[in-house]
Amino acid sequence: MHPLAPGPRDRVDALGEGGLIAAIRRWLGNTCPPPPAGIGDDCAVLPRARGRGLLTVDPVIFGRHFDATVAPAAVGAKLLKRNLSDIAAMGGRPRAAVISLCLDRATRVSWLRDFHRGLATTARRYGVALVGGDVAEGPGVLIATLTLLGEADATRVLTRAGARAGDWIAVTGRLGGSLSSGHHHRFTPRLAEGRWLARRPEVRSMMDVSDGLAKDLAALTPRGTRPALDHAAIPRRSGCTLAAALGDGEDYELLCTVRARADLSSLRRAWRRRFPAVPLTIIGRFVPQSASDPTPEALPVTGYEHLRATP
Amino acid sequence: MHPLAPGPRDRVDALGEGGLIAAIRRWLGNTCPPPPAGIGDDCAVLPRARGRGLLTVDPVIFGRHFDATVAPAAVGAKLLKRNLSDIAAMGGRPRAAVISLCLDRATRVSWLRDFHRGLATTARRYGVALVGGDVAEGPGVLIATLTLLGEADATRVLTRAGARAGDWIAVTGRLGGSLSSGHHHRFTPRLAEGRWLARRPEVRSMMDVSDGLAKDLAALTPRGTRPALDHAAIPRRSGCTLAAALGDGEDYELLCTVRARADLSSLRRAWRRRFPAVPLTIIGRFVPQSASDPTPEALPVTGYEHLRATP
Repeated sequence: MHPLAPGPRDRVDALGEGGLIAAIRRWLGNTCPPPPAGIGDDCAVLPRARGRGLLTVDPVIFGRHFDATVAPAAVGAKLLKRNLSDIAAMGGRPRAAVISLCLDRATRVSWLRDFHRGLATTARRYGVALVGGDVAEGPGVLIATLTLLGEADATRVLTRAGARAGDWIAVTGRLGGSLSSGHHHRFTPRLAEGRWLARRPEVRSMMDVSDGLAKDLAALTPRGTRPALDHAAIPRRSGCTLAAALGDGEDYELLCTVRARADLSSLRRAWRRRFPAVPLTIIGRFVPQSASDPTPEALPVTGYEHLRATP
Repeated sequence: MHPLAPGPRDRVDALGEGGLIAAIRRWLGNTCPPPPAGIGDDCAVLPRARGRGLLTVDPVIFGRHFDATVAPAAVGAKLLKRNLSDIAAMGGRPRAAVISLCLDRATRVSWLRDFHRGLATTARRYGVALVGGDVAEGPGVLIATLTLLGEADATRVLTRAGARAGDWIAVTGRLGGSLSSGHHHRFTPRLAEGRWLARRPEVRSMMDVSDGLAKDLAALTPRGTRPALDHAAIPRRSGCTLAAALGDGEDYELLCTVRARADLSSLRRAWRRRFPAVPLTIIGRFVPQSASDPTPEALPVTGYEHLRATP
């Protein structure tokens, strides 16, 4: 469905701001608690948190993150899941979200209805309260920005920092071909997996793969080291080349590092018992960036290799 | 300064996403803590909160909330202050914010620099940590969306609900002429005033005036009553008509209700001691919507009157 109405019917400007907000409350149903916990006051009031807070924000923009071929419910689901993946990457659990909409006056009410229903279905599945937001007019645009507040597990927050030379690099699921396969809106955020990994003392750091392994892995790489990847081990989505697995992005898998002296087979066994349907694969390790190796790009790409977008 | 560069110089696409994020960290200075508390991880990690959380979001959109005549530093300040006013309206204190930018590729780097410096100056003044965000491309647009997380005072959250028939209506500061006077970007969010009012047991409910008193007061009005306003008492900005004070909006003053049997002179005295430079004015009360009065609009507009946008 194209989000803009071609004629005078089904346009959001017939509802007006007040009518739209009332409709959003209906569409969100019980995922939006009554005020002041939900829509209807100056701020949403949240229960006292037990742990540290986690805050993240991501938008979906018409023409960038989706087009008229994506079902509006899938756009709503993707908007929330992109943010859930960031909470997963810290080992946290989600709590509440606010959504800011910037809309052309001609936006279809039926598009907005399906978008919010997709949001609500996803929120229900992952226990997120949709507590408020803002509606503004922006000619020619359709942008929904979701801010998600989560909570860290009592014991530990897993950040991007902490890996050392010699540490292993592991990734969940399979990489590549996210756009062509529809994975980019059908993916399952790795929330349970993230919390499990954050409780394992041998896991040192974590992030989610959103811009592609080749780009994202740099953020976990300790100073003075380089990631040496076993290209054959990188778990690819069926039909994907290595370049696609390294560079496509929108994988929303977890990328983590495991201390060099960890018992990998014990980690793998425990993982398989808990998550039998999701692979966890060791794809390489961080090796010292030796003085004899000033230009990693010059090395041949076989076996343990430097991370490059084009092998 | 117009936010779009007319030529090939000073364009944000010369920086790229990574360069822009690095520049934003520099511009924000010490208002952005090191990761994972600030920019640089999948989520920002926040210290454990003491009280209940408060969450609010508001954008500024080029062409709607500002134009090329407003200094970019004032746009940044306004973006944060709009949200601070919502925290003030609950009697809370602000903690941390994330900012989502949606930008045309030709956006001026110097505009973004001054915008972020304005944001940072305001954040420093009100003790807000600028902890993260997102940067995305949106052709032809410039939208900054800020989500602010605050904390409720331990004792009480002041919501929009709670007023009863007979209760007084009070407002801080002066109303009207916000756009023509520049108040809409020069205003001071009433944070200290909001916390003070939330600690007064005779104050029952509160909100901020952003869409104009005439529209906003409906949200505080208890069922079965109507606001009867003393039009002569409504504090107007110098040179403003009553219509402007009722309808202009963007006042960012606090509107609250006070229980009918409160000792108003004691409340006024205590207020003046604490806030000698800011008026707190009783402007009316809620009266029963009697059966003999089905169409409030038909009443003559003198003395205590119905709320109407055009007196």
